[in-house]
Amino acid sequence: MVTSARSIDRFYSIIPAGGVGSRLWPLSRADAPKFLLDLTGSGQSLLSDTWDRVYSLAGPERVMVVTGRSHRSAVCEQLPDLGDHNLVLESQPKDSSAAIGLAAAILEHREPDVIVGSFAADHVIRGQLLFHRAVAEAAALADTGRIVTIGIAPTEPSVGFGYIHAGEPIESLGGRDSYEVRSFVEKPDLETATSYVESGEYLWNAGMFISRADVLLDQMAKSDPELVANLREMAAVWDTPERDATVDRLWDKLPKVAIDYTVAEPAAERGAMACVAAHFEWDDVGDFASVSKLLSRGRPNDLAVLGQGARILSDASNGIVVAQSGRLISLIGLQDIVVVDTPDVLLVTTKENAQKVKSVVDLVKRSGESTVL
Amino acid sequence: MVTSARSIDRFYSIIPAGGVGSRLWPLSRADAPKFLLDLTGSGQSLLSDTWDRVYSLAGPERVMVVTGRSHRSAVCEQLPDLGDHNLVLESQPKDSSAAIGLAAAILEHREPDVIVGSFAADHVIRGQLLFHRAVAEAAALADTGRIVTIGIAPTEPSVGFGYIHAGEPIESLGGRDSYEVRSFVEKPDLETATSYVESGEYLWNAGMFISRADVLLDQMAKSDPELVANLREMAAVWDTPERDATVDRLWDKLPKVAIDYTVAEPAAERGAMACVAAHFEWDDVGDFASVSKLLSRGRPNDLAVLGQGARILSDASNGIVVAQSGRLISLIGLQDIVVVDTPDVLLVTTKENAQKVKSVVDLVKRSGESTVL
Repeated sequence: MVTSARSIDRFYSIIPAGGVGSRLWPLSRADAPKFLLDLTGSGQSLLSDTWDRVYSLAGPERVMVVTGRSHRSAVCEQLPDLGDHNLVLESQPKDSSAAIGLAAAILEHREPDVIVGSFAADHVIRGQLLFHRAVAEAAALADTGRIVTIGIAPTEPSVGFGYIHAGEPIESLGGRDSYEVRSFVEKPDLETATSYVESGEYLWNAGMFISRADVLLDQMAKSDPELVANLREMAAVWDTPERDATVDRLWDKLPKVAIDYTVAEPAAERGAMACVAAHFEWDDVGDFASVSKLLSRGRPNDLAVLGQGARILSDASNGIVVAQSGRLISLIGLQDIVVVDTPDVLLVTTKENAQKVKSVVDLVKRSGESTVL
Repeated sequence: MVTSARSIDRFYSIIPAGGVGSRLWPLSRADAPKFLLDLTGSGQSLLSDTWDRVYSLAGPERVMVVTGRSHRSAVCEQLPDLGDHNLVLESQPKDSSAAIGLAAAILEHREPDVIVGSFAADHVIRGQLLFHRAVAEAAALADTGRIVTIGIAPTEPSVGFGYIHAGEPIESLGGRDSYEVRSFVEKPDLETATSYVESGEYLWNAGMFISRADVLLDQMAKSDPELVANLREMAAVWDTPERDATVDRLWDKLPKVAIDYTVAEPAAERGAMACVAAHFEWDDVGDFASVSKLLSRGRPNDLAVLGQGARILSDASNGIVVAQSGRLISLIGLQDIVVVDTPDVLLVTTKENAQKVKSVVDLVKRSGESTVL
């Protein structure tokens, strides 16, 4: 039986802090990416919330953050306990294979038997004990040589998440929630999602991966050997004066590709993936409909408000208002409305259209209004 | 036969320029009342549009404007041809009986056989020749001692306007569109409005009154003799040094009452009202749904935009945007939306709820946010 309060042996957390979160524009911007925002009204950023969640897994000195150079000062300000040797700065964003892979390679070089767990900087989780217990079970399973993902037991047939098709239970270690992974599936339509949830065989893919660092990199190398060779070459000199020259030489060669395609999906095909079914609340806060849901827990007919000192007059309206401009905001007779009021951009849409914000961002790019991105 | 281009004998226009237009908040404010706004995209205010429409009736020197003292400079700036002797400033707003009645009394004192026509400063009319012709026919009819209102042949069963129930035709003068007035009726529900339009007996009440000044005041005196006595007392000294002292003594005694209740409705009961059915386009621009309709003539699925240099990205949205803040405004998937974006207040509602803006203004008053009114 895994206990929840104890520090996990040989464990190291990796927090890839990247991605603007285009569907949260105009709240999210290039210089205010989603992970630096307070989307829950907690008073601190999603990154800080993530830090608070993971540092107890193995201690605050065993958390590595990977982020862009331009976010260095913001990240350091928000995470005062993050040591310099635990901050990996990317020259240019290269998606999650490079970000997580480089961190794993650095940690592998420093500590060959390390078990790493990667946790996105911009997800929301509620239920710290259940989270800790799931990670501990995943770490124990990972120590047997598998790559383990934590899947979330679905509470509704969401079409906004990818799913994990779980297989046979794995009971050898005494963990009660471990399963083989048959496959990962992309965001489904509602009918498919409903069948997934009814079958009891599917979990939400929360993008958390726990494995030995060497196992992760070896699986990645089967998909892209050059990528992993370059990552390990940088890692070997990371803590030496040769770091900058090596990075400058190799960084541009790294492919921009999500870890789902270099590790998770091919490893599942090889039978090398396992999953732990978890029961904590999780959301990737992908759009304003998600933010609204998080803010108005259990009160779907409320008007959710994000913004300190917001001045709002609502008459028979529900949805979400993000109030950042300091203006008085009046709403009359609006259902499921989304209003994002910033000093230089106003966005109005509905929860149903929340996913389309990304396409408007593309439109903004093409329209020459890129100063507001 | 009445000709349209000729100046109308003994005619004088009165433009009562009052009323904030609460249902157009936050575009309309105490210091930016509806009549000072450009709601048609014409590049000038409704007041200026009204001036341009009426000055040709009898010449620019025969147009009198009644407005509040606080609007003096704005009105004079917008109407450079308005002479001092044609500007009547109210100490305090006292509604249309006092405003129109005082102007009529001043004009009656100066020119006993004058025929006056009062035209609101904040309505929209399209069809200058038809307008001129209707006023000329009304003036000819008014010279026989009646009070004449110009009613608009309805194009749809509007529930936003009051109606005139027309009676028998009056053909003696050769006018083709003159009728007795049976009664005035308040804004109906849709079923009633539909039956009105189908009957062919009802006209929209556009609040235009044409009559001899003495007839207007005599009819008003039958309803409120003290009011008319006070108006005539002020009028008698208006062009003398005693004006201010007399106004100061009498103004507070004037009742706040619409001319509909002191003249139109009781005169109709007495059989003293006539109407001319007119066929020009008319709208009182009562709310943002009206503004939207005016701006997107014949294109109901368009997004109407009011605001110079507006920066708007619309994805599958229609309705109206009033852009005054200079911000980029993005709309996604909104039907019949109303967005009014001003530097200090944002209003979001739908056309269907456009009439409720007034109640939000009341809410603002009670909430202590009166600096935005």
